[in-house]
Amino acid sequence: MTNSARPGAASRRAFLKGGLAAGAALAAGSAAAGEQVITEVQDWNRYSGEGVDARPYGTPSQFEAHVVRKNVPWLTSDVVSSINFTPLHELEGIITPSGLCFERHHAGIAEIDPKDHRLMINGMVEKPLVFTMADIKRFPRENKVYFLECAANSGMEWRGAQLNGCQFTHGMLHCVMYTGVRLKTLLEEAGVRPEGKWLLAEGADASSMTRSIPLDKALDDCMVAFGMNGEALRPEQGYPLRLVVPGFEGNMWIKWLRRLEIGDQPWQQREETSKYTDLLPSGKARRFTFAMDVKSVITNPSPQAPITHGRGPLVVAGLAWSGNGTIKRVDVSIDGGRNWQTARIDGPSLPKALHRFYYEFDWDGSELFLQSRAIDSDGIVQPTKDDLRAARGSNSIYHNNGIQTWHVNKDGVIENVEIS
Amino acid sequence: MTNSARPGAASRRAFLKGGLAAGAALAAGSAAAGEQVITEVQDWNRYSGEGVDARPYGTPSQFEAHVVRKNVPWLTSDVVSSINFTPLHELEGIITPSGLCFERHHAGIAEIDPKDHRLMINGMVEKPLVFTMADIKRFPRENKVYFLECAANSGMEWRGAQLNGCQFTHGMLHCVMYTGVRLKTLLEEAGVRPEGKWLLAEGADASSMTRSIPLDKALDDCMVAFGMNGEALRPEQGYPLRLVVPGFEGNMWIKWLRRLEIGDQPWQQREETSKYTDLLPSGKARRFTFAMDVKSVITNPSPQAPITHGRGPLVVAGLAWSGNGTIKRVDVSIDGGRNWQTARIDGPSLPKALHRFYYEFDWDGSELFLQSRAIDSDGIVQPTKDDLRAARGSNSIYHNNGIQTWHVNKDGVIENVEIS
Repeated sequence: MTNSARPGAASRRAFLKGGLAAGAALAAGSAAAGEQVITEVQDWNRYSGEGVDARPYGTPSQFEAHVVRKNVPWLTSDVVSSINFTPLHELEGIITPSGLCFERHHAGIAEIDPKDHRLMINGMVEKPLVFTMADIKRFPRENKVYFLECAANSGMEWRGAQLNGCQFTHGMLHCVMYTGVRLKTLLEEAGVRPEGKWLLAEGADASSMTRSIPLDKALDDCMVAFGMNGEALRPEQGYPLRLVVPGFEGNMWIKWLRRLEIGDQPWQQREETSKYTDLLPSGKARRFTFAMDVKSVITNPSPQAPITHGRGPLVVAGLAWSGNGTIKRVDVSIDGGRNWQTARIDGPSLPKALHRFYYEFDWDGSELFLQSRAIDSDGIVQPTKDDLRAARGSNSIYHNNGIQTWHVNKDGVIENVEIS
Repeated sequence: MTNSARPGAASRRAFLKGGLAAGAALAAGSAAAGEQVITEVQDWNRYSGEGVDARPYGTPSQFEAHVVRKNVPWLTSDVVSSINFTPLHELEGIITPSGLCFERHHAGIAEIDPKDHRLMINGMVEKPLVFTMADIKRFPRENKVYFLECAANSGMEWRGAQLNGCQFTHGMLHCVMYTGVRLKTLLEEAGVRPEGKWLLAEGADASSMTRSIPLDKALDDCMVAFGMNGEALRPEQGYPLRLVVPGFEGNMWIKWLRRLEIGDQPWQQREETSKYTDLLPSGKARRFTFAMDVKSVITNPSPQAPITHGRGPLVVAGLAWSGNGTIKRVDVSIDGGRNWQTARIDGPSLPKALHRFYYEFDWDGSELFLQSRAIDSDGIVQPTKDDLRAARGSNSIYHNNGIQTWHVNKDGVIENVEIS
């Protein structure tokens, strides 16, 4: 690092002071003009900073150190079979930075040397196959943006408002541009026999995670992905290879993918019998509830991102998504669902991807009950939590897509609440 | 980190060996079946890895440590006024990971505390304004994917093939999803006076980088961005605020943006007179050559990513872009431009953003002269380097969008060449 004092800093300083004194005014109106005046030239305007050899792989600013994934220590007994959460309230747009995509492991992060990784296709196929990573990269590839949501996202909320902050209520969610080979391409290479109806996907981590997937889905839009957001998959997201199952619950997106077996019925694995089923009041359980339902959440303001600027112009921002396709409309309410306004959807609208919405208004400083409600391309409307409980009781853990309510008090402090 | 031996590893091992012995075959046909056999259970399948508390902000796999930005030490006299290059040959899709976006500084990386950062609008406006970062985030925001190319990208190639590897010939390029406020919104807040025709943008780094921008462009699609790829801008990309000037040369995208002045003519700054002009054979120079012309490059295979798998199926991948809009078509030649095939454009086609193209064919192991040629939505065709020199001579540094040629020998080794 070279620090060289630069001549001209003094005159620049004088100019800035003069310019501000002459006409400082505030568009958003939050602070007095006096607070805006820069009284001295900052160090970053006086001295050279780090050079182009300092960080071959860049990292966020030191002033963004609070923007991290967080786990909840009491939630599970061990960090190697646990989850952390995406800081949704700190994010913009629809792409989740790879370093902030939530993690769910069942035996920790497998650190795989790609040279030693193999993908096997076996079972009811004409020709069992084994691929190296180099082999897979010789097939035609595609790039697709998809959200991934854990079926347990918002799961704590079945029994009422529990966790505070959208990072914890909705942060088992990310959206990434994947690069890989269509699963159909590999299955055609192996030749699925006519009796083949299901596919078992198996991971190479120490939990050997396994899930059964209907063959129709496997031949539709599933991918075998080696890239995310332009670079190789991250270790905690399945490096060097993961299954992408667009719109379906995250647990099925097998990471560290090493085997695909074709069969004529589901395998009844732990993760599709004892787990990832929804116990109903009748004592029966819904199962094979693969698709993630239409859902949305207001990310800003929210409990971890309160309103600190007082009354006046306020940007309400949020995310909406559906396992069925795109989002057709998002409504926002500031009075707990009595009145609804259409939000503005901004940025690309891609199937089975996050959608970013905004609703801007002048806050008068009064109490708010903020809600968002998404409607997807199939016309399905996000339900209230009461509607969900009326249909499924409150024994469930998974598939809670109910409307979220944030209570905003007159000081801009925000809490997770439920209203009926 | 918890390491727990898992029962069942031995039986899993027996199964894998059996499965592979029974029917190993190779779709891509590059290696003997024997090479595919996994002879022992890997550690990552035996022991748990790191837990969800290990990396609050994730990083790439240890096996991807070679995927980094690189500078060329001899190119400039000091690393604080220099450049490094995006490793295009290691990337997928159209989004450049934030940590791999090339850097160009004139006084190193300014490390700005956002609490102390201000943006001033002054000059020919009704109401001079000063914004804090919090103020800016109260205006309606948008999310857009745009490429940024340094005008000097491929600049060494004006005098013939110089640098080897697309990281160095084409790596002053990245493509990011930006979040911010339309510049027009802020200028309307200040009220541009009728005589205002140009805008001066100024950075807060120690070089106080300044460029003149036509007001028409400023009121069209320019943004004042605080987000990139879903999170805050990275320090080397102008944290906390940069100007986004879609389709125009990267030098105009002022980083660490602190001031916008409205005037009635350009300011004739160093970076638009002595630099960023194109000296013609006549002795005159082209200037204000803002828009980046239609261009493409094959990223794989390329000198840093040779063909190692021998003959047979080969995926040719590349990038195309134009400051005019979208890419309508990309052609690929394997014989130095004698014959052209239409490549497949995959992924989102967004205006002034990178486009990913692929061309798959069976390589017979013979010598290749690989080229790509892009055609944009205005119908403009990427020229040959000879065509460019015929028009502009070879004194230029900037705006070289000529067709790139990679020579592939029969061993798959690749070099940067020129053919006439």
